[in-house]
Amino acid sequence: MAKKNAFYAQSGGVTAVINASACGVIETARANAATMGKVYAGRNGIIGALTEDLIDTSKESAAAVALLRYTPAGAFGSCRFKLKSLDANRREYERLIAVFKAHNIGYFFYNGGGDSADTCFKVSQLSNSMGYPLQAIHVPKTVDNDLPITDCCPGFGSVAKYVAVSALEASFDVRSMARTSTKVFVLEVMGRHAGWIAAAGGLIESHGIPVVVLFPEIEFDEGKFIQRVDTLVKSHGYCTVVVSEGCHYPDGKFLAEQGTRDAFGHAQLGGAAPVVANMVKQALGHKFHWAVADYLQRSARHIAAKTDVKQAYELGKKAVQLALKGHNAVMPTIDRISDSPYRYKIGSAPLSQVANVEKFMPRNFITPDGFGITPLCRRYLAPLIQGEDYPKYKDGLPVYATLKNLPVAKKLPAFELQ
Amino acid sequence: MAKKNAFYAQSGGVTAVINASACGVIETARANAATMGKVYAGRNGIIGALTEDLIDTSKESAAAVALLRYTPAGAFGSCRFKLKSLDANRREYERLIAVFKAHNIGYFFYNGGGDSADTCFKVSQLSNSMGYPLQAIHVPKTVDNDLPITDCCPGFGSVAKYVAVSALEASFDVRSMARTSTKVFVLEVMGRHAGWIAAAGGLIESHGIPVVVLFPEIEFDEGKFIQRVDTLVKSHGYCTVVVSEGCHYPDGKFLAEQGTRDAFGHAQLGGAAPVVANMVKQALGHKFHWAVADYLQRSARHIAAKTDVKQAYELGKKAVQLALKGHNAVMPTIDRISDSPYRYKIGSAPLSQVANVEKFMPRNFITPDGFGITPLCRRYLAPLIQGEDYPKYKDGLPVYATLKNLPVAKKLPAFELQ
Repeated sequence: MAKKNAFYAQSGGVTAVINASACGVIETARANAATMGKVYAGRNGIIGALTEDLIDTSKESAAAVALLRYTPAGAFGSCRFKLKSLDANRREYERLIAVFKAHNIGYFFYNGGGDSADTCFKVSQLSNSMGYPLQAIHVPKTVDNDLPITDCCPGFGSVAKYVAVSALEASFDVRSMARTSTKVFVLEVMGRHAGWIAAAGGLIESHGIPVVVLFPEIEFDEGKFIQRVDTLVKSHGYCTVVVSEGCHYPDGKFLAEQGTRDAFGHAQLGGAAPVVANMVKQALGHKFHWAVADYLQRSARHIAAKTDVKQAYELGKKAVQLALKGHNAVMPTIDRISDSPYRYKIGSAPLSQVANVEKFMPRNFITPDGFGITPLCRRYLAPLIQGEDYPKYKDGLPVYATLKNLPVAKKLPAFELQ
Repeated sequence: MAKKNAFYAQSGGVTAVINASACGVIETARANAATMGKVYAGRNGIIGALTEDLIDTSKESAAAVALLRYTPAGAFGSCRFKLKSLDANRREYERLIAVFKAHNIGYFFYNGGGDSADTCFKVSQLSNSMGYPLQAIHVPKTVDNDLPITDCCPGFGSVAKYVAVSALEASFDVRSMARTSTKVFVLEVMGRHAGWIAAAGGLIESHGIPVVVLFPEIEFDEGKFIQRVDTLVKSHGYCTVVVSEGCHYPDGKFLAEQGTRDAFGHAQLGGAAPVVANMVKQALGHKFHWAVADYLQRSARHIAAKTDVKQAYELGKKAVQLALKGHNAVMPTIDRISDSPYRYKIGSAPLSQVANVEKFMPRNFITPDGFGITPLCRRYLAPLIQGEDYPKYKDGLPVYATLKNLPVAKKLPAFELQ
């Protein structure tokens, strides 16, 4: 059997460690060069496959590939693009097959979250439905930590560490200022549907910090929230609030949607943090500060968790190993064996059970009052933020890889995205 | 002459390295125990002196004091409280002298920014004006970097490093997403009057990142700004904007003041970042993300600059040495000798020349178009973000000092703050 090339692409929101998975894929493919051909990366995810915009990773030096392990965000570009079903858009699937055939691609590695698992699953069915032999493996990645089956998702541990470290540091700050100035600090974090990232803010309670966590899983109750803040400020002199961007009222309206208008009547987009902070000010009169971490949290490779980086690499490596063993339509997973000492093994799950399933915080990970995390949640989170894995620095800034990203010569006519 | 005790206090907004100065003061005082007595820290700055709420730092172990070097924010509590003039509030000065007399305090170390230098200067005059022998030394500290005479201020180098690292990482993120999603990322940083912190965002341009910096020193011109963003997005596919909280229109109105009202007609406090991001959206239609770093930037000890930590310690040490040599009404300073290799010495300046003077960005540190930094500015900033000085970690979180902060027994009647 002639040696097949591989296609690798990054999809959806990027993370601090998705390139570590890329590094795992490319280095493992290179180590198995006898049985696997070149790795062609899609420029901007699946769009790179559809437009035949392929990057020849074999042109990158071993050092450049190794540096990917320390580099945040998507080195080949990502995309937000979901394939429709085969029935709804057969043209796209035919194009994918044409591109794969033209470049002798037999392996499809897709590095993404829930939507991407769905895309990968659809591609994995091409072997049967369209008679083109292809093995599709999904490499999990999402800061939201909401993929099923796997114990955690690469990208999450690092954002959790960032949030816990940042919330701890800012809490030391507000504690210093509280006597005559700021008494409440509000930090907004990501997580539109699931509260895993916000939960990481709850880890600082064990450092003696009075913290209120607002989860998307818990309907927001302003009265109870204000009461909780009041109690904490009275007992500690200050408090920190970690609010998920997905925090919402019982009717589903996000806290961030306040229907605010500027002087010209334009609707204003704001964050949840300023809304929560103003709420505290109006009810209790406390001076506040607020921060919105946004991209800073998911790109913060400088404070990535060592466990997370290691797992991201291992899952990329395992994806190639699964492919070489003949698997299709699977996703390598983290299977936790024990919390303390933390032990896990790399397993795998069928994509049919992964695509379009979201994993939320279990109710018993959240305290009965809805404002904190339980010891059970703490045991789950603790190992995931373990260890530091610092990049090298030059002139005060981290040394991150910017690849050559040389294109593979096109062989097909152009294709219009619809 | 009987050995005198020292008073030390932290004032104003805290930083990632103000405790490194505290460490320098306390360790140097301990090393000179033959000539200097105990260091009493004011709980919450000068308020601790007025209310006789003194902390006995001699009760802290050498290890705890050493850990201050790695701990962000103010370990003894800070305050925003400015002494009035002797004429306007003689009562406060009489109280200070009563407290100092009661506790045999002959040295006054005040660790703060511009307002605090003014307070320290007023206290330094007590020897003459009220016949109480006291030496007052100001230890500089401010993330705003706006004190005169000293080449830089402890706290600034670390926030500059945080901003440059964070802006670089987030720029890698938006670059990954730009093909189908976010094209403009806006990061809001501190600096109400001076643009030093925003300038640090300009450092990432040398890493190939298209960045627009909005300084408080440059009157905001929406048309020119939109044009600059448009040019960069057209040439690079994306761009990053670093906006100072102090950025304002020609009439002095801050960008953050948009006169927005919520559904109930309440004025909304927002940041400059969402305002700038919405401006770009409305003019150019680009999808955006924005972050407001707020306290995260000034408390980020986890990514403090080694140069900054070292200087913070050295200035605390020098303050004690100046006191022991008999100085009064002075501030130790960083005197730069050369940019590259970076060399400096510790000097000192009379407080009369420091109090109530603000140092802004020189116009020749800002590019002619007002949106970037010049090579001259780069040469100034580059050494200040050099080096990493990581804290230790335990269970995934930094090990920061929380002191015992035991009170010194009170000897005087209570005092009401006015």
